[in-house]
Amino acid sequence: MPTLDVKKKEVASKKVKPSGLPICEYQERGHKWVLENQTKEVVQREHNSGILVVEVTDPKQQVYMFHCNNVTVQIKGGKFKSMIVDSCENCNVVFDTVISSFEMVNCKKIQVQTTGICPVFGIDKTIGCTMFLSEQTLGITQFTTSHSGEMNVSFPDGSGDQKEVPIPEQFVHKLVNGSVVSEVSELYH
Amino acid sequence: MPTLDVKKKEVASKKVKPSGLPICEYQERGHKWVLENQTKEVVQREHNSGILVVEVTDPKQQVYMFHCNNVTVQIKGGKFKSMIVDSCENCNVVFDTVISSFEMVNCKKIQVQTTGICPVFGIDKTIGCTMFLSEQTLGITQFTTSHSGEMNVSFPDGSGDQKEVPIPEQFVHKLVNGSVVSEVSELYH
Repeated sequence: MPTLDVKKKEVASKKVKPSGLPICEYQERGHKWVLENQTKEVVQREHNSGILVVEVTDPKQQVYMFHCNNVTVQIKGGKFKSMIVDSCENCNVVFDTVISSFEMVNCKKIQVQTTGICPVFGIDKTIGCTMFLSEQTLGITQFTTSHSGEMNVSFPDGSGDQKEVPIPEQFVHKLVNGSVVSEVSELYH
Repeated sequence: MPTLDVKKKEVASKKVKPSGLPICEYQERGHKWVLENQTKEVVQREHNSGILVVEVTDPKQQVYMFHCNNVTVQIKGGKFKSMIVDSCENCNVVFDTVISSFEMVNCKKIQVQTTGICPVFGIDKTIGCTMFLSEQTLGITQFTTSHSGEMNVSFPDGSGDQKEVPIPEQFVHKLVNGSVVSEVSELYH
């Protein structure tokens, strides 16, 4: 059935497909770890592992992850400044603590776990992300969202169980005395 | 400079470019007006006018506008059921009253004016829309938004002037006693 084939091709072409050379390097200038075009196959071949491990050595360091697909990244070494995940799909990231924020932009299907503290998760133009919080960061973490959907947060509920709740993606606005008053859609009530 | 040319081409290819045959017809089944692949040039050629006028004749009628670019549509005849603007760019729509809603999805740069009443504007996956409200609909209209940005609402401020305010697109969420509490970003405070 040629029609079906064409449709499949179209859908596939919209996915994030790493094309350039894989990069995993530390750049002195900017104190920045750069991970680009990483895939499960690249990590397996170059690191002989299912997990790409990055070892931060200074709280000033940042991590920038770009154009990666189907890869699990673990940031070891404790506290670091911030992390940006840009144009990635089907990726998992585990880290301990970031000082400022963990941001996702133009992503699909990202899972992130903080085992320490993450003050802010920034989510922009992203469809599908789940954030796993530690007990420790539970009362601290804020989520800043725009142009995004299918967001969930999973956290220990205090009685030994894990709880998952959605982050609202639909809002209702009204004009009241010339100002806009915004509320979460009643989908979430 | 060939590099610049390539970039220009890339940007242009992302625009909504009507490709199929232009359609402007009333479908008995579904009581639906269908406008597809309309452009300024098509409207000028086929209707000898700068404005595509659709005349609704029954409140049961709906209007579906798809894949149009750089076109101004006026819905005459008063009250009708609803309108959907799907995958359109740089379009203007003027109508009197819809009974249920006016929806935009996958659009860019749309201007809409209601001269009567519009209970709900639904905005999904849309960047850039301005809604011009009548005095009459001011206290009634709600805006339901998701995955969208650059939204504005313009309305008579009661003293003869027009006022324009942005509709928030960034939100901040926190976990409070195991539930998500959401607020408009402080950008809008």
